Amino acid sequence: MNKRESQRMTIVEDAVIPQVNALVRKHRGTISLGQGVVYYPPPPNITGAIEKMMSDKAHHVYGPVAGLDELQTALVDKLKTQNNIVLNDEQCLYITAGANMAFNAMVLALCDAGDEIILLAPYYFNHKMTIEMCDCKAVIVNTDDNYLPLIAHIKAAITNKTRAIVSISPNNPSGRIYSTQMLSDINRLCAEHRIYHISDEAYEDFVDDKQPHFSPASLPNSTPYTISMFSFSKSYGLASWRVGYVVAPHTLETAISKVQDNILICPPTISQFVALECLRSGADYIKKHIEHIDHNREICRQMLGELANQEIIAPPLIEGALYTFVALQNRNCDFTMIEKLISDYRVAVIPGSAFGLHHKHCIRISYGALPAAQLTVGLERLASGLRELR
Amino acid sequence: MNKRESQRMTIVEDAVIPQVNALVRKHRGTISLGQGVVYYPPPPNITGAIEKMMSDKAHHVYGPVAGLDELQTALVDKLKTQNNIVLNDEQCLYITAGANMAFNAMVLALCDAGDEIILLAPYYFNHKMTIEMCDCKAVIVNTDDNYLPLIAHIKAAITNKTRAIVSISPNNPSGRIYSTQMLSDINRLCAEHRIYHISDEAYEDFVDDKQPHFSPASLPNSTPYTISMFSFSKSYGLASWRVGYVVAPHTLETAISKVQDNILICPPTISQFVALECLRSGADYIKKHIEHIDHNREICRQMLGELANQEIIAPPLIEGALYTFVALQNRNCDFTMIEKLISDYRVAVIPGSAFGLHHKHCIRISYGALPAAQLTVGLERLASGLRELR
Repeated sequence: MNKRESQRMTIVEDAVIPQVNALVRKHRGTISLGQGVVYYPPPPNITGAIEKMMSDKAHHVYGPVAGLDELQTALVDKLKTQNNIVLNDEQCLYITAGANMAFNAMVLALCDAGDEIILLAPYYFNHKMTIEMCDCKAVIVNTDDNYLPLIAHIKAAITNKTRAIVSISPNNPSGRIYSTQMLSDINRLCAEHRIYHISDEAYEDFVDDKQPHFSPASLPNSTPYTISMFSFSKSYGLASWRVGYVVAPHTLETAISKVQDNILICPPTISQFVALECLRSGADYIKKHIEHIDHNREICRQMLGELANQEIIAPPLIEGALYTFVALQNRNCDFTMIEKLISDYRVAVIPGSAFGLHHKHCIRISYGALPAAQLTVGLERLASGLRELR
Repeated sequence: MNKRESQRMTIVEDAVIPQVNALVRKHRGTISLGQGVVYYPPPPNITGAIEKMMSDKAHHVYGPVAGLDELQTALVDKLKTQNNIVLNDEQCLYITAGANMAFNAMVLALCDAGDEIILLAPYYFNHKMTIEMCDCKAVIVNTDDNYLPLIAHIKAAITNKTRAIVSISPNNPSGRIYSTQMLSDINRLCAEHRIYHISDEAYEDFVDDKQPHFSPASLPNSTPYTISMFSFSKSYGLASWRVGYVVAPHTLETAISKVQDNILICPPTISQFVALECLRSGADYIKKHIEHIDHNREICRQMLGELANQEIIAPPLIEGALYTFVALQNRNCDFTMIEKLISDYRVAVIPGSAFGLHHKHCIRISYGALPAAQLTVGLERLASGLRELR
């Protein structure tokens, strides 16, 4: 063969999560503070969805490309009551097999080869990889020392190739929650420059009481340039079922429809019925579990606070999502160190370099997947590892 | 906005199936000979998969990127016994959310912008659309008057940009089954030119006794350049569950893994458990239903044979898959005619132009989705429509 795989896929970095997961599987007993999942299963009433699925053989043939009408209707209601996004004729709603797939559809719908999308570092690595896979350029703009966006820096990065700015709030990997003002500023910037604001809200339910979730698509006149992505994976413990959705300007509907038809044909019907049951369980189900995650967050605050007092890490910022992103003091963090943490200390975290932060040595700690006692042991192992490894 | 959607998505044609389906929904009582689905549901034992899913909360978090180990194992066995494909270290197996997604992964894994993939017309439209969506070029080579490949014509279309030749057997949309010789010739051509043979085998179970299914990846020494795609959608009536799989050279594994991680993260676990139950039901379940499809095929032979005698259509070739592709005599077939067939005669078919056949006026008739009585009524309506419309 002249070449084996395409250049475009050679350029795309290796996915870090599968690499870390492989090491976790290899070293038994490892506590994973790696992948972002929640500790709880979906609500038990989802079995009703399964009965529904089996009740009519028409449910086994392809469904509508944008998703089932009844899930569409339920999501319109959820978006209105929970996000203050009132859908109108100028918008479309697409259900996808997870929010990653929605992002891929957005890149293809918006960008030709060479077009640019601005990501804020530390970024979500799949965003960068997807942009590159589509032959486009991820323009990386660093956030400030507290991982918050700097509007002037974003503005300076806009070129005539820029098609969108991506924000994630609550943020993966930093856990920071962007203020209403900050998200409104990004929206204003997009309006001025006639580009799109892609707002990734996969962690919308993982906020603290002090700062409720804000959806930029709820801003007046934001419809023509605001794209909002959501997921059932975290909120309802539905990761393996693959359900997400995206609200986009209707001018993109034809393009989104083509992408979805080519890649997926239709979202899995069983997963959509299950998602519908989850919405019926509603906020109470999530709230019950969020309290546990709040408790885990407190454990992180205490234990990582001690590590900061010992000057092993910088003072941690712990807010929302399922993550905190901490900077190591006088320590390097490369993949070899991650491997040692797993093999010698039986604890897994994700290196900050995977999220595009190269000027500091950071790690992402995911704290949503474990019972409190196990999280505590995991953080103790991490503390030992960080103390002893340099 | 300077531009609303990307040029690449503007170039991609509108998906015809959603358009036809929308018309079918609008005109109640329409009998659809349009979309390719089977009439039967999945085997009843799939409910066991659902119990399994709910038995362990670990099943709700992300699974392995290539699919579940136990489905992988079962597929290795299926490929060996049913396809005579004996997997070795030089190959990889990826489970996807449908075979369309597998094709998208192959295009991205193999092709950079401007690279070419050869399709045989009439082609499967999603193949062409996906190639274009990825900024590549679909090079269309017409088949002969009987919709069979012409090796010399394919050879003449190979350039230094060519990365693959796609074959579909049993064929969508023509229903033709390619002979072992023909598929071996395509493989030889690929070996000589150091390009890949992408063999789409979604309809492998829909053959007649005279000509069993042949997988080119069963040929000796075919491993480095043969890619085989399969689907559960048709064989097991599992369309809405979205499960397909692909066997590819291991040299492409890293690229495929990245594509899958970016777009899907992992295939839906519930659908994989269901697919596993389907494999356990095995060939008997399919065989029982294939007999009905054989019967439908006979109905098509008779009724379309009469239309051919009346010189309304060319003599039909009815072999495998769920389709026959017929050429109209002295009649045009554009989308307006398709609309009239639906609105005035309440029968839906897909125009041949959607499959890239422009020098003849053809339609694709899908006969797998209906009970015999309804198929007969549908074909009667089609006959009336074709007699009366010009």
